[in-house]
Amino acid sequence: MLAFECDYNNGAHPALLQKMAETNETPEAGYGMDVYSRSAAEKIRAFCGTPNADVYFLAGGTQTNVVVLSAILEPFEGAVCAESGHIHVHEAGAPEYAGIKTLTLPSHAGKIDAGELEAFVERFYADEAHEHMVFPGAVYLSHPTEYGTLYTKAELEAIAAVSDRFGMRLFLDGARLGYGLMSRTTDVGIADIAALCDIFYIGGTKVGALCGEAVVFPNGTMPKHFANHVKKHGAMLAKGRLIGAQFDALFTEDLYLSLGKHGIDAAERLKTILKEKGYRFFLETDTNQQFVILENEQMRLLSESIRFSEWEPFDKTHTVVRFATSWSTREEDLEALKELL
Amino acid sequence: MLAFECDYNNGAHPALLQKMAETNETPEAGYGMDVYSRSAAEKIRAFCGTPNADVYFLAGGTQTNVVVLSAILEPFEGAVCAESGHIHVHEAGAPEYAGIKTLTLPSHAGKIDAGELEAFVERFYADEAHEHMVFPGAVYLSHPTEYGTLYTKAELEAIAAVSDRFGMRLFLDGARLGYGLMSRTTDVGIADIAALCDIFYIGGTKVGALCGEAVVFPNGTMPKHFANHVKKHGAMLAKGRLIGAQFDALFTEDLYLSLGKHGIDAAERLKTILKEKGYRFFLETDTNQQFVILENEQMRLLSESIRFSEWEPFDKTHTVVRFATSWSTREEDLEALKELL
Amino acid sequence: MLAFECDYNNGAHPALLQKMAETNETPEAGYGMDVYSRSAAEKIRAFCGTPNADVYFLAGGTQTNVVVLSAILEPFEGAVCAESGHIHVHEAGAPEYAGIKTLTLPSHAGKIDAGELEAFVERFYADEAHEHMVFPGAVYLSHPTEYGTLYTKAELEAIAAVSDRFGMRLFLDGARLGYGLMSRTTDVGIADIAALCDIFYIGGTKVGALCGEAVVFPNGTMPKHFANHVKKHGAMLAKGRLIGAQFDALFTEDLYLSLGKHGIDAAERLKTILKEKGYRFFLETDTNQQFVILENEQMRLLSESIRFSEWEPFDKTHTVVRFATSWSTREEDLEALKELL
Amino acid sequence: MLAFECDYNNGAHPALLQKMAETNETPEAGYGMDVYSRSAAEKIRAFCGTPNADVYFLAGGTQTNVVVLSAILEPFEGAVCAESGHIHVHEAGAPEYAGIKTLTLPSHAGKIDAGELEAFVERFYADEAHEHMVFPGAVYLSHPTEYGTLYTKAELEAIAAVSDRFGMRLFLDGARLGYGLMSRTTDVGIADIAALCDIFYIGGTKVGALCGEAVVFPNGTMPKHFANHVKKHGAMLAKGRLIGAQFDALFTEDLYLSLGKHGIDAAERLKTILKEKGYRFFLETDTNQQFVILENEQMRLLSESIRFSEWEPFDKTHTVVRFATSWSTREEDLEALKELL
Repeated sequence: MLAFECDYNNGAHPALLQKMAETNETPEAGYGMDVYSRSAAEKIRAFCGTPNADVYFLAGGTQTNVVVLSAILEPFEGAVCAESGHIHVHEAGAPEYAGIKTLTLPSHAGKIDAGELEAFVERFYADEAHEHMVFPGAVYLSHPTEYGTLYTKAELEAIAAVSDRFGMRLFLDGARLGYGLMSRTTDVGIADIAALCDIFYIGGTKVGALCGEAVVFPNGTMPKHFANHVKKHGAMLAKGRLIGAQFDALFTEDLYLSLGKHGIDAAERLKTILKEKGYRFFLETDTNQQFVILENEQMRLLSESIRFSEWEPFDKTHTVVRFATSWSTREEDLEALKELL
Repeated sequence: MLAFECDYNNGAHPALLQKMAETNETPEAGYGMDVYSRSAAEKIRAFCGTPNADVYFLAGGTQTNVVVLSAILEPFEGAVCAESGHIHVHEAGAPEYAGIKTLTLPSHAGKIDAGELEAFVERFYADEAHEHMVFPGAVYLSHPTEYGTLYTKAELEAIAAVSDRFGMRLFLDGARLGYGLMSRTTDVGIADIAALCDIFYIGGTKVGALCGEAVVFPNGTMPKHFANHVKKHGAMLAKGRLIGAQFDALFTEDLYLSLGKHGIDAAERLKTILKEKGYRFFLETDTNQQFVILENEQMRLLSESIRFSEWEPFDKTHTVVRFATSWSTREEDLEALKELL
Repeated sequence: MLAFECDYNNGAHPALLQKMAETNETPEAGYGMDVYSRSAAEKIRAFCGTPNADVYFLAGGTQTNVVVLSAILEPFEGAVCAESGHIHVHEAGAPEYAGIKTLTLPSHAGKIDAGELEAFVERFYADEAHEHMVFPGAVYLSHPTEYGTLYTKAELEAIAAVSDRFGMRLFLDGARLGYGLMSRTTDVGIADIAALCDIFYIGGTKVGALCGEAVVFPNGTMPKHFANHVKKHGAMLAKGRLIGAQFDALFTEDLYLSLGKHGIDAAERLKTILKEKGYRFFLETDTNQQFVILENEQMRLLSESIRFSEWEPFDKTHTVVRFATSWSTREEDLEALKELL
Repeated sequence: MLAFECDYNNGAHPALLQKMAETNETPEAGYGMDVYSRSAAEKIRAFCGTPNADVYFLAGGTQTNVVVLSAILEPFEGAVCAESGHIHVHEAGAPEYAGIKTLTLPSHAGKIDAGELEAFVERFYADEAHEHMVFPGAVYLSHPTEYGTLYTKAELEAIAAVSDRFGMRLFLDGARLGYGLMSRTTDVGIADIAALCDIFYIGGTKVGALCGEAVVFPNGTMPKHFANHVKKHGAMLAKGRLIGAQFDALFTEDLYLSLGKHGIDAAERLKTILKEKGYRFFLETDTNQQFVILENEQMRLLSESIRFSEWEPFDKTHTVVRFATSWSTREEDLEALKELL
C-alpha cells in the first residue's frame, strides 16, 4: 500500500533520532529549560535573523494555535481567519473551548484577501453595535494554507498593513513552513515572515520531526509568564528535551530547508506524473499538497492500492482528493505510484 | 425625539408593575422557588398545552441562549445557526466563552433552510475527518428572526425532521415570540412550537416585561441540576420573584398575546405610513421590525428627530435602517412619525 | 410563618417601586446607557467621594464576582479568599467556569488575616515551582462577611498594604455593605473602602432593591471594553433602567444608609431577644446576620413556625442556624418571634 | 553535578529509542490509530487483566488529568482531592481553565482518608444549599502520591466503596505507577487498581519514556467521542506512533516493571546512604522520592554539587528537600552522592 495521504505518516529524520540517542543519558533540566532547547532557540533566532526573538517549543499544531491565540488576545477579541482555516474547521472546537471566536473571511484557495480583511474590520468599527460583537484582535494565516497555496510577499505586506492599522496581531501558522520556504515559485523568505508577522511558528511535526512546533515572537513580545499559560493548557512537556533535541538537529546545517526541498522536489515529480496520466487538478499547488478530482468509482479502485485523503465532494459523482509528499517521500514510491495510477 | 429604534426602550406594562407592587411585602423563597414563579410556570404550561413541561425563568436573551446551549450540548457538539443568528453575531462571544462553537448556514432573510441544514449535516458525517470537527448538536432558530421574518409551519416541520433524524436538539429563541404569534400571516401557533421544538423560550423583555425569558422544555427534559448550571453562569437571581411576578401577570387573561397584537397593529400602521411616504423597503415583514433603505444624508437628517437603528450598509450612499414598534407604541407617536417622515 | 431565613425574601423598598413606576413610560436607551443609570452612577460617585470613579451596574452577586474577577485577573492569576468565601463555597463553580482558581486562606469568622495573606504570598514567590502554580492576582474580601463579621479599618489597611506590595488588586464584595456601613461598632466608612480597595461593589439586592449591585472602580480603572466583557458573560440587561432606576432611588436622600440602619436596629433587637431567651450564640455579630446553636429536635420544632437557615452542623446533636434581619424587618415580626422562641 | 532533583531529567530507556528507530520508516496512520499504539493498548489490557478496557495515550500528566476529568465530570461536578494533590497545586490552574473545581480534603502525607471523604460527601448532600455548590463527581488520587507515599489495598477499597456509594468516579493518577507497583512493601497490584478504579493512568514520562501516559478505562467506559475531546484540548499528537511505539516497548517482556524495580532499588540504597550519613527524614517513603530536612546553609552548600528539589520550608532555618531516583539512576551516581553528603 502506497502512502500519500498526508505528511505525518512517517517517523523522524534519522539525524533527529541520532541527536536524541546521543543526548539520551545526560541529565537535563525539565520543562524546556534544557540545553538542547536553548541551543535550538538560538539557532532559530539566527535562522530568522531576529536576535531578540522569543522562541518557545510546543508539541503540535492545534495546541500551538490555541495556546498562542489565548495568550495574545484580549478577553473581548477573537481571531480573523479564512473559512477554510484549520482553527475554524479542523480543531474540534479547541479555540472555542479556550473562549476564542473565529471570525471568518472568504477563502480564496485557502487564503484571505487583504482588501476583504480591511473591509471587514472597517465595517466592524463602523457598526454602532460593535461593543456587542467580538473584536478582531488577531489575524490567523496559514502558509502554506490548508490547500497548499502560498501568500506572495505583496499579499503578506498588504495583510500586515491592515493588521497594523487596526492594532491586530498577525499570526502565521507555519505547520508546513519548510515546504513553503522551499517552493520553487515563492518570493517569501523567513526574513519576510519575521519582519511582517507578530508571531509565527515553524512546524516540525510535518517537516522531519516526531512532534514539535517552534513558536517565534520575532520582536521579543512573548506574553508575560507564557510558560504558565502553556502549563495551564496542559501543553508543557516534562521532558522538553524531546522537542529541543529535534529542533537542534533540524536547524543544524540547514537540515530543515533541505527537508523542505525534498518534499517540494517530490511534489513536482508527483505533479508531472499526475499530469502525464491525465488527472484533472482541482488545485495544482507549488507546495507538497496536490488536489485532484476523481470519479467516485475510480477513487474506490485506487484506494485499494494507494492511500490518499478524501478532501471534499466535488459533485455527485466526483470527489476532490489530496496527495501529499513530504521530506520522507521516496523515489521508489513515486515510481510505484506512476505504475498504479 | 420619537423612539422607534428598538422594542426595549420602554419599561413594563402597568399590570406587571402592579403585580410587583401588590406582592412586594410578602416574604417569599428565593432563587425562583417563590409562589409567583411557580404560578407563572403553571400558566405557561397551560398556554403551551404541555402539562409536563419544565419551565425556568432567566433574565435576558444572551444569558438564556448560553445557559441553555451549554446545558444541552455534549462536549463534542456545537450549535448550527444562520449567519445572521444572534448567538453568532451579537453576543460578544458569549457562546464561545462557554466553549460553544456556532456552525453557520446561509441566512435567508434571517432564516435557515431545512434542505441546506440537511446537506450540511450529511456532509459533516460523510467527512472522514469529522472526529476532528465540532459535531452539530443543536439547531438554533430565532422566531421572529433578527430580520423580523417568521418560519412557516411547513418550514419548522422540515427543520424538526432533520434535527430528529440526526439526533440534534431543536432550540427556538423566542425573544420576540409574542409578535411572531400575533403576526397576521403566520400559521405557527404556540402548540406547533411546543410540538416541534425540544426547547424554546418565551421572551418577556421585549414583550411587556422589564426583564425575563421563560425557558420551556415542553417534554420535561430539563437537564439534571439545571439550577446549578444557571448558578454557575451567574444567571440566578436571588429574588426570582422579580421575573416570576412579571410572567404571572403576563400570562393572566391573555395579556402576553394582547401585547403582541398591539405591537403588530402598530407595525402594520407603520408599514402603511412608510409606504405612503414612498420609502423603499429592504425587508417588509409581518412582525414588529421593518427595514427600509435610506440615503445617507436623508438618514442623518431624520436622525435629528427620530431614533431608529442603523442596521447595515446597503451601498456606498445608502444604509439599511430598522424601525421597531412594540407593545408600548402609542398611536400619537405613529402620527408624529408620519409628520416627520 | 415568620421569615428570618435570609435578607432577600422580600421585594423592593416602596421608593424604588415608585421610581420605576414614575419613569416607566419614558423611552430610554438600553444596555445601561439610560438616564437613570447615569444619574445613579453620579450619586454613587458623590456618596463614595470619588469623582473619577467608574460605576457599572450588574444584576446579582455571583454574576458580579465572576465578571469583575475575570476582567481584572491576568490569565496566570487567581483570587485569594477565605475558605468560607462566597466565591469558594456557594457559587456552584462559577469562578472556575470562568477559569478562575480560588486560593484559600483560613477563615477567622469569615475574615482573612493580613499576616497570613502576606505569608502565603511570600511563600508563593519563594517557591521554586511557582511558575507551575496559580499566581495570587486579586484578594477577595466580603464585608460584611458570610458570617456577618466586619473588618476593622486597621485590618483593611493591613490587607491593602500586602495587596499593594505584591501588585494584587483588592476587591471587596459588598453584597451586604449597607448593613456593614451602619453597624454600630464599625470604624470603616465608605470613604475608607473607596480609598483602600481597587474595586468594590455596593449591594442592592439585599439592601432594598429587587436586584442589582453597583460595581465601583474608585480610581477610574475599569478595564477597557468592560461592557463587552459583561455581555460575554450574559450579564447585560437590555433594560438597564431596571437597575439604574432602583439605584437612583437608593442613593436619593440617604435611603441606602437608612435601610442599612433599619436592618441593624432590627438585628440589635433580635440579639436582645435571643439573649433574653437564653439562646447560645455561635457567632454574635454587629450586622444583620446572627448565628445560634440549636439542639436538633428544638430546631425541628421551631422550624414549624419560623423560617431560618440551617448553616452547618455544630456537633452530632446540634446545628448552627442563621437568623437574618433586613431593611424590611417589621417590629411586629420581631415581637411575634419573641413569642415563639 | 549529580542530578537527584527529579525523575524526568533523563531521556528514554534504550529499548524505547530502539523501537522508535526500528519502526521509523514505516508509514503509519496518524492520531493514535497506528499499529504500535494498538499493539501497546493490547499489551496494557493484558497487563491489567482487563480484556475489555479502553486504552488511550496522551503526552503528559497535567494534560491527562485535565482531559480525563473534563470528559468524565458532569457540568455540575468537581473533583475531590488532597490539598497536596497535583491537580490542586501544581497545574497552573489547568483544571479550573477547563471549568473544574478541586474540592480539597486534608492531606495525610499526600493521601486522603476514606472516612474524611465520606464525611465530606455526606455533609455536602446534607447541606440545604448544596445545589449552589460544586457536586463531588470524581475522586482524584495519586499513587504514589506527590509525597512518595502509597495507599494500601484496604485504603483503596475503602475509598472505592465511598466513591461507589455516592456515584463518584474514582480516578487514579499513576504518573509514577511503576515505582508504586514495585515498592517492596505495597500490597496493591495492577489488578487491584484495575478492579477498584474507574479510570487510571500508567505513567510513562517518569518511568522510562520521553513522554506519554496510558489512560485506562478498565471497564470499557471511555466517554463517547473521547478523541474529539482530546483534540479539543490540543492534546492529540499527529504522530501518535511516538507514544505508541514507546509503550509497546515498555510493555514488552515486563520492561515497565523492571524499570520500576530499578528505581526502587536505587531509592532503597539512597535511603541507606542518607541514614548512614545521619540525615533527618521529613518523610521516608517506600517509593522513589525521599524527603529530608536540611539546615538552610547546609542546603546551599550541597546544592553546589548536587541537584535536588527544594520542597517546602520546614521552619525558619530549615527546608524540606526531595531526592528522587528513577529507572535511570546509576550505581556510580549513588556512590558519588555518598561521598558528597
